[in-house]
Amino acid sequence: MRLAIDAMGGDHAPKEIVLGAMDAVSEIDNLTITLFGDENQIKPLLTDTKNIEIIHTDEVITSDDEPVRAVRRKKNSSLVRMAKAVKEGEADACISAGNTGALMSAGLFVIGRIPGIDRPALSPTLPTIDGKGFLMLDVGANVDAKASHLVQYAIMGSIYSEKVRKISNPTVGLLNVGTEEGKGNELTKKAFEQLKDAPINFIGNVEARDILNRAADVVVTDGFSGNIALKTIEGTAQTIFTLLKDTFMSSTKTKIAAGLVKNDLRGLKNKLDYSEYGGAGLFGLAAPVIKAHGSSNRRAILSAIKQADHMVKHHVTDTIKTTVESIELGKE
Amino acid sequence: MRLAIDAMGGDHAPKEIVLGAMDAVSEIDNLTITLFGDENQIKPLLTDTKNIEIIHTDEVITSDDEPVRAVRRKKNSSLVRMAKAVKEGEADACISAGNTGALMSAGLFVIGRIPGIDRPALSPTLPTIDGKGFLMLDVGANVDAKASHLVQYAIMGSIYSEKVRKISNPTVGLLNVGTEEGKGNELTKKAFEQLKDAPINFIGNVEARDILNRAADVVVTDGFSGNIALKTIEGTAQTIFTLLKDTFMSSTKTKIAAGLVKNDLRGLKNKLDYSEYGGAGLFGLAAPVIKAHGSSNRRAILSAIKQADHMVKHHVTDTIKTTVESIELGKE
Repeated sequence: MRLAIDAMGGDHAPKEIVLGAMDAVSEIDNLTITLFGDENQIKPLLTDTKNIEIIHTDEVITSDDEPVRAVRRKKNSSLVRMAKAVKEGEADACISAGNTGALMSAGLFVIGRIPGIDRPALSPTLPTIDGKGFLMLDVGANVDAKASHLVQYAIMGSIYSEKVRKISNPTVGLLNVGTEEGKGNELTKKAFEQLKDAPINFIGNVEARDILNRAADVVVTDGFSGNIALKTIEGTAQTIFTLLKDTFMSSTKTKIAAGLVKNDLRGLKNKLDYSEYGGAGLFGLAAPVIKAHGSSNRRAILSAIKQADHMVKHHVTDTIKTTVESIELGKE
Repeated sequence: MRLAIDAMGGDHAPKEIVLGAMDAVSEIDNLTITLFGDENQIKPLLTDTKNIEIIHTDEVITSDDEPVRAVRRKKNSSLVRMAKAVKEGEADACISAGNTGALMSAGLFVIGRIPGIDRPALSPTLPTIDGKGFLMLDVGANVDAKASHLVQYAIMGSIYSEKVRKISNPTVGLLNVGTEEGKGNELTKKAFEQLKDAPINFIGNVEARDILNRAADVVVTDGFSGNIALKTIEGTAQTIFTLLKDTFMSSTKTKIAAGLVKNDLRGLKNKLDYSEYGGAGLFGLAAPVIKAHGSSNRRAILSAIKQADHMVKHHVTDTIKTTVESIELGKE
């Protein structure tokens, strides 16, 4: 597997990206990595060059850059050059922890879509109480989705869950305001009907309050609602942990308690840390494209690399392509 | 103030409803309450009948009832009779902890809308880290909203926050996928433009991850996204508290810690308990209608009664009416 990585994207680039890449090549057989970025910064960090090469780039897309414009203008940025390597067949997949919008733009305009998929979907795996996690898509690639897009998300999510997450016959739920059939807005009512006929294990509507309880293995939703759900989970968890910290620091008694449970609470926080599950796939593109979390450390980068490796080895893109084709054929 | 209450709605009806009503009349001057429900159940609980009367009803709308049909058919239910009392001018406001959809239907079909308001909005006050809370609307009354509806929500939310929550010049934010102007789906892009011209203190887009940090005093959103956000907050909090409980019960050491922080953690949980802020107003109806939480205890019912009392005393409905009228006049 030949992987292209944007070494300059994310809060801890290039250091943690380079460290994660070195970990990956020593763990994964037949993996070669090309790091795109500033050679002067990367070289001193790359203490083992086995199966890793550097391609020097002198531009960087920052998190403040307007995505579409940045991809068009910064042709020699690490992110765009990485995407081009995939487009030109020099790499099988790519990963960036940088500007999400720019990665989506580069994916769409440089790498291109799978024929039959109208819109790519940003698809993170989120934590659940039972530790198994669930896939939610779309969380923001396409904020004005149609019902047919949601069906495509369901198919892509099911294939990924089966091939990469090794869940047999994964359940698919539609994020909605109630569990009963007939609930929802125009979009979800229409999507519900179409999902019933799709080649997936559709279990009906799921409510936002149940998704962290693993109401379904795959939760499909439009990019606007998915983004709201994802950021509400993050914000609520952040708020509770802030309040918890304040509570534990409020008196001598609570400080003693904090000392006793510190390690266990760290375990709890790790349970909710979704970097363990890899990055968010941009499903629907002609090759696996992974958005690693902006705050990724070497461990999260290693997870994302493993994820890309699985997607390539288990032919996720090809399976999506042939499944979508067979549905189109069935329609005729 | 004459208040009509559905004594049969909610998980702890009629007991906690009756207790809350008795607390309210002893605390609030010039308050008279009519309890609608089964006299045989209510009478033994009503140990003080000062300023409280019972109107016997023999039907109940349950949480399983289909809302619109239930309101049409169960004419002698406690909920419908309560709404009729408001319609006929026998009460100034009403409260139910029962079926939310049925209360919305009764509000819309029995009590009716304020002229100029197209859709009522379900509007709970949610907790924030600083303890001040924020108002979010709509969380599900209208799942297919237009931009003009969101502007009406913003006006109603501002008036309520100013008059009842005593926030001067309350900030209004639009729930969106990013904070920058130009972000969002078709609906939020259009609403953004219209909100800039509305007679409110519009501060732009707010992200779901910041709302519990009180990004704005009033957060406006369509009923679908608002419902997803609300239920995601509930589900995430529930999940973390479940994991916390498991963590504290995992060993002798953590059990000792649990004993030391038990009371403080209860305080934290109370901070996140939004029944303290009263129920969710159904703004836009011709009289104040409050949906108390289904799990309301006497304390939550008392909060909801105070809220209704404030809405009546500070003429929230009339102010909304004249504000909307003045905008319509300005348009001509």
